[in-house]
Amino acid sequence: MNTATYTVTGMTCGHCVTSVTEELSELDGVQEVQVDLPTGAVVVTSQEPLPESAVRGAVEEAGYQLTSASS
Amino acid sequence: MNTATYTVTGMTCGHCVTSVTEELSELDGVQEVQVDLPTGAVVVTSQEPLPESAVRGAVEEAGYQLTSASS
Repeated sequence: MNTATYTVTGMTCGHCVTSVTEELSELDGVQEVQVDLPTGAVVVTSQEPLPESAVRGAVEEAGYQLTSASS
Repeated sequence: MNTATYTVTGMTCGHCVTSVTEELSELDGVQEVQVDLPTGAVVVTSQEPLPESAVRGAVEEAGYQLTSASS
């Protein structure tokens, strides 16, 4: 099990949180996504560490920007 | 045909605009809804004048607040 925390900018409301959560949840092996709207912190729990490019792609697909990542 | 302009507060992104537009479009006789996100101005075109209570209810159902109305 792997947990990584990312920072996502551009989310302004609960709909944005839903969009980011849905896109990240579709990545292979993702088990849980938790988003803190005020800080933009996104905690992703997955079976294996995720490639940052995959996470970045999912965030951008939702319409937002990944600004930092730390495992 | 009747056109009225309302001010809605709390909308922060395109998802919010979609929610408000969908709820108002469901009211009887509504033909067009135009939302300007930066100002919160919502222009509703309907066959007959709408009761303000119906408009307020739709806006609140979407999760936002109606702060002014002018026909």
